[in-house]
Amino acid sequence: MSIIVKKFGGTSVGDVDRIKRVARRIKLTYQEGHQVVVVVSARSGVTNELIERAKAIQKSPADREMDVLMTCGEQETIALLCMALDSLGVPAVSRTGWQAGIVTEGLHGKARIREVSGGDIRKQLRSGKVVVVAGFQGINDQGDLTTFGRGGSDLSAIAMAGALRAKNCQIFTDVEGVFTADPRIVPGACKIDAINYEEMLELASSGSKVMQTRAVEFAQKHNIPFEVRSTFSKKSGTTVKKKVKSLEDTLVSGVAIDKNQVRISITELPDRPGAAAAIFKVMSDAGVVVDMIVQNVARKGKANLTFTVPSEDAFRAEKALKEHFADGAGGKLGRSTNIAKISVVGVGMRSHSGVASTFFDALANSGINMLMISTSEIKISVAVNPDQGDDATRVAHQAFGLGK
Amino acid sequence: MSIIVKKFGGTSVGDVDRIKRVARRIKLTYQEGHQVVVVVSARSGVTNELIERAKAIQKSPADREMDVLMTCGEQETIALLCMALDSLGVPAVSRTGWQAGIVTEGLHGKARIREVSGGDIRKQLRSGKVVVVAGFQGINDQGDLTTFGRGGSDLSAIAMAGALRAKNCQIFTDVEGVFTADPRIVPGACKIDAINYEEMLELASSGSKVMQTRAVEFAQKHNIPFEVRSTFSKKSGTTVKKKVKSLEDTLVSGVAIDKNQVRISITELPDRPGAAAAIFKVMSDAGVVVDMIVQNVARKGKANLTFTVPSEDAFRAEKALKEHFADGAGGKLGRSTNIAKISVVGVGMRSHSGVASTFFDALANSGINMLMISTSEIKISVAVNPDQGDDATRVAHQAFGLGK
Repeated sequence: MSIIVKKFGGTSVGDVDRIKRVARRIKLTYQEGHQVVVVVSARSGVTNELIERAKAIQKSPADREMDVLMTCGEQETIALLCMALDSLGVPAVSRTGWQAGIVTEGLHGKARIREVSGGDIRKQLRSGKVVVVAGFQGINDQGDLTTFGRGGSDLSAIAMAGALRAKNCQIFTDVEGVFTADPRIVPGACKIDAINYEEMLELASSGSKVMQTRAVEFAQKHNIPFEVRSTFSKKSGTTVKKKVKSLEDTLVSGVAIDKNQVRISITELPDRPGAAAAIFKVMSDAGVVVDMIVQNVARKGKANLTFTVPSEDAFRAEKALKEHFADGAGGKLGRSTNIAKISVVGVGMRSHSGVASTFFDALANSGINMLMISTSEIKISVAVNPDQGDDATRVAHQAFGLGK
Repeated sequence: MSIIVKKFGGTSVGDVDRIKRVARRIKLTYQEGHQVVVVVSARSGVTNELIERAKAIQKSPADREMDVLMTCGEQETIALLCMALDSLGVPAVSRTGWQAGIVTEGLHGKARIREVSGGDIRKQLRSGKVVVVAGFQGINDQGDLTTFGRGGSDLSAIAMAGALRAKNCQIFTDVEGVFTADPRIVPGACKIDAINYEEMLELASSGSKVMQTRAVEFAQKHNIPFEVRSTFSKKSGTTVKKKVKSLEDTLVSGVAIDKNQVRISITELPDRPGAAAAIFKVMSDAGVVVDMIVQNVARKGKANLTFTVPSEDAFRAEKALKEHFADGAGGKLGRSTNIAKISVVGVGMRSHSGVASTFFDALANSGINMLMISTSEIKISVAVNPDQGDDATRVAHQAFGLGK
């Protein structure tokens, strides 16, 4: 019999009725004769409630105790879902992260999975039970409860699928899969049937928020294929795997937009080795992830440096830079502006030229000015004015013939 | 350094402010140089919320999964209390039941403690940390989470104190200790400074609801002295231990009242061996605990049998009896009536006669009619009409000179 891992997030198990609905859905798979492992998150809202209560007691609580607190969320869900399954006549048993043998290392609140033994899950499956596992959590070598940070339940599901050599790992979410573009922006966007890990990663990191990149990276590293599909529909979703045959012919798989970026400009940077490096050291020390970077050629011994950071980090970035320049480092902080980043992604680019020119031509023909450009092996991103972001997405989607 | 175990119930840690208050209280003991282990319950209300959510999914959920659900309650409290201690500069670390090495056997929902290793608690204490342990929960040999049923956190605290050879085990509650009678009924009632396990057990089982009997029985079996005292006052409470010196001179330690009993009468019971036994088999099969029992001498081959059961079990008891008689067993179910049970308790009774006559005389002189009488080695109980219960308590309290 084949093992299927199904992951349901906080919205899918948000209240008693939704938990019952998820149980009915699991029952169908169980009745088809599969061995089913379900990974669940905390009910939506629960995690925030717990955090609020903690903050009311201590401004920055110790990470270890935050993890003890946070893990209650999924523990509640696994018990409730088992009850819902049981009431449908589906025998089920729950496993917390530690009971499922999910061993972690690294910091509390952002632990990394080192090993997944699965505990006695195989035995439970063989005895005809559905096993419901708490996502987002594990245990470290000291016997402390740990959590994985945002998107952690996706990671649990993928790691569990890998450990159990599952035939299928289904990540249920509120969209039907990965689309060629955000359907709210591009009405003609299509669901992508299959995509490879790299493309999924580039799309995710470019603003297509179907999944956190961390879980995808883990799947890529250990080659664990998975499917992203909708909790609220029976349609098949998007399969993410190592090699996708038909992709060889596809130049571009999708267009992503990220409106959540701020462009920071630095002028009068001394044109000497290490000046730019010092800037990025400052950003790194402040915990700010820098995305697109453009530096022009120096004139009269001074250069301009421009880069983008996530909006939520912009204030912290500027503060750190001001201190840097106040300490006598050469350079001047310019005005920061919001930008939209449009990315076209596709493994086909590797062996085909012309993607950039098609993209840039299309934008130019629509009167959209490019503020910055950055490229990776399978991605080309441009920054545009925020009010032109949606237009740019539609234009690119059209230019690469991605529509229905 | 001496170890002190402190147990705080759900009301004491009911919200963020109360958790902070408990933390301040613990800090005082910590600053006196003691090693402190704290055992806590779920915040009051949380357990009921979780039960409600479970019942909304399944009428009678599997006990195993109920335990997974229930244990979340204390897990939340241990994390929050550690944060509160930390914010006061008191280093603290939490331990769930299984992390504290509380190993259980028996049924889910009413597991029994088999062993308490304490895990690494001693090491944590030596390193200067307060250890906060989740009450009410443990782990069984299969690695499943288990809970102890009502009053379970008291049991955790006492077992932990025994395992750690604590100098002191303090059960914090909303009363100042054990009183010679309920002060709401007898205004002159005094707090008892010290009492032995047996008396505490008899008082508890006679309606003095300071603690569940289970924890007291465990303390008696393993000879673990403890103190019942108030969360909201600095006064010392009531020490419960094996031998209490001054008690040798005390005939009666306290008077308890239980208004929560229903008297069930059976008439025309055949006067043959086994007829009464069959009745109690029926009660036992229905899960009803029978308390006082009176059977009169048979007349014309028929006897009357009267006994009391807790009010909440009365309906179930009558239903089972009706079925028993409908099945052809001899006997007839009479009308059930509420009664109040007044008990005088004291180890001094063992070696002194006259307690019963003093008690009965006092009631007679006050015109209170006794409906039933039952006795144990250190207790005499009488059933009276419910509207005379408070009077009977005051009369007994006065008769044995227990007032201030």
